[in-house]
Amino acid sequence: MFEYEILATQGRARAGVFHTPHGDLQTPLFAPVGTQAAVKAVTPAQLAELGATLVLSNTYHLYLRPGDDLVAEMGGLHEFMGWRQPVLTDSGGFQVFSLSDTRQVDEDGVTFRSHIDGSTHRFTPERSIAIQENLGADIIMAFDECADPYERAYIEQAMERTHRWAERSLAAHKRPDQALFGIVQGGVFPDLREASAEFIASLGFPGHAIGGLSVGETKDEMHAMLDIVTAILPEDKPRYLMGVGTPEDLINGVARGVDIFDCVLPTRLARHHAVFSPEGRLNLMNAKFARDQRPIDEACACYTCRTFTRAYLRHLIVAKEFLAGTLLSIHNLHALISMVKDIRKAIIEGREWGMEQWGMVAGQG
Amino acid sequence: MFEYEILATQGRARAGVFHTPHGDLQTPLFAPVGTQAAVKAVTPAQLAELGATLVLSNTYHLYLRPGDDLVAEMGGLHEFMGWRQPVLTDSGGFQVFSLSDTRQVDEDGVTFRSHIDGSTHRFTPERSIAIQENLGADIIMAFDECADPYERAYIEQAMERTHRWAERSLAAHKRPDQALFGIVQGGVFPDLREASAEFIASLGFPGHAIGGLSVGETKDEMHAMLDIVTAILPEDKPRYLMGVGTPEDLINGVARGVDIFDCVLPTRLARHHAVFSPEGRLNLMNAKFARDQRPIDEACACYTCRTFTRAYLRHLIVAKEFLAGTLLSIHNLHALISMVKDIRKAIIEGREWGMEQWGMVAGQG
Repeated sequence: MFEYEILATQGRARAGVFHTPHGDLQTPLFAPVGTQAAVKAVTPAQLAELGATLVLSNTYHLYLRPGDDLVAEMGGLHEFMGWRQPVLTDSGGFQVFSLSDTRQVDEDGVTFRSHIDGSTHRFTPERSIAIQENLGADIIMAFDECADPYERAYIEQAMERTHRWAERSLAAHKRPDQALFGIVQGGVFPDLREASAEFIASLGFPGHAIGGLSVGETKDEMHAMLDIVTAILPEDKPRYLMGVGTPEDLINGVARGVDIFDCVLPTRLARHHAVFSPEGRLNLMNAKFARDQRPIDEACACYTCRTFTRAYLRHLIVAKEFLAGTLLSIHNLHALISMVKDIRKAIIEGREWGMEQWGMVAGQG
Repeated sequence: MFEYEILATQGRARAGVFHTPHGDLQTPLFAPVGTQAAVKAVTPAQLAELGATLVLSNTYHLYLRPGDDLVAEMGGLHEFMGWRQPVLTDSGGFQVFSLSDTRQVDEDGVTFRSHIDGSTHRFTPERSIAIQENLGADIIMAFDECADPYERAYIEQAMERTHRWAERSLAAHKRPDQALFGIVQGGVFPDLREASAEFIASLGFPGHAIGGLSVGETKDEMHAMLDIVTAILPEDKPRYLMGVGTPEDLINGVARGVDIFDCVLPTRLARHHAVFSPEGRLNLMNAKFARDQRPIDEACACYTCRTFTRAYLRHLIVAKEFLAGTLLSIHNLHALISMVKDIRKAIIEGREWGMEQWGMVAGQG
């Protein structure tokens, strides 16, 4: 279990298979986000049809609602949300630091207030692991602190605490059917990222995550940090770039040796009427699509593109039909998932691939 | 085309087949409503999977948005909304009288204001038919006036006007690939219903609709009107009871010789978290379902019941996930469609059937 096999490489890009209790994950891959144990407006059957294999869900949200004990009682996340393929949960760290009203960090953990009702809660590495064991995902995360990437003094402190929390997360974790990943932090500072990657890699996790990116830094900074970190992390373990991202980010990430990505972008864009297309990112509410008989993308194999015109999708948006959110989400998720699958195929077949080939969805930062 | 074959009868109930350009309709049947060329929160693929065969859409809404000329330019409703099975449009009459801000009826037609932007529009029988020819449904409706069922003096006047409009609708209709149904009106008055059924039946429509019911009258009044009307309408043409309704109404309607039903109830209930179940109508937001591991209905074959627990559906509702609307709509539509299919089977196989057998969804008036 949790073996990672590399099938082919091309430069630093890798194509592999990660074995989990709920099936093999073909990497690289893009994972849709089901924040509250549901990918917004898309059913598990639709997710499977559009090619999703791994779904992420958020520990912070599920802990607050409906509660991890309830999810455990219902048989765990897979059973609860009707998704029989692999699931990944984050540690709750990122949301505690980005969503909760107020928070207080100490060496032992974080005390925070719920964004739902203001009630007070406390996460420690041990608590985060216990919650994630209740949720029952295949891949879970060490508890970490995601700090402002530019505040060097603070980020150094936070990184060191994250390292101690990584050791405590590892010690607390019991379930053999879950792979616990360690998280590399260090903001935008090369020496900190290097130190963090060295330390986290030394702990023997079955996989590694790269956190604290796509949180305000420039693309060049992101790429520089990825270059440093992936050069250090062991080749024989999967690498997960958290919360990233755009088509361009995926291409750049795979090229730098990242295997797993997740992001709310495709479903969030869909709810704002925006879609990935060969012409770049389009907002389908625009009046110019009122009589456009083309699908979003002639070459796309998703249900939405096989069935509906831009004119119809625009009508749904203007008429405020929720179905628009579903159909646009299906297309956007399919676009990213199939782009990464196509890259995987190119790596395995030893074909050239790069930004220009995925112009349809790239260049949309 | 538009032949109606009766395969079996049981008392006044009939099981038949109605041939349309987009396939055969097995009657009796329940049709989901796609007001704005979309069944709310449900894709055409999901509709087909849950067993829908006929979908209704509203002329009034589509005329205002996106416009019937646009729908025609896009290849008609089937093409536009991605539904390849039969479609039915109403005449716009009911919505003009129930939704528009103000309206003025005269012998020639109705002038009304859009509920969207207050703009002024005019429907006549000729205009309604022209719009419905643009929309391109398989089954279309004569233009009628649906008046308050208890105001005898007015309803008599409105009924007579509806009769003259039926003749004008028939004269205006050109497309041979559309079946134009006449509509019987007459409120809750036996003599008016009799006169209306006699007159409409005399015009030679390929099918007949019964309008102006389920608009405030009692169940006994509805049944009495159905008894009168179905005794007069020709046996060899399909009968469509407009905008009805509840599980109980469907059972009572089929027993009185009705073949086609439509209603927004299943999707509207779903958006208010209510579902049909063996225990009667349930509101899944109720805290008592928080840890209920059963599906909505153990015996139900729909995707929702095959995949999700009440606990999960309640979580989606409490967490305000739109997916709840989709999953509850799938169940409610499946419940009514499959109930009517089961009754059809019983009629064909000569088995007894009645209210008690469909307790699961009936008794929920």
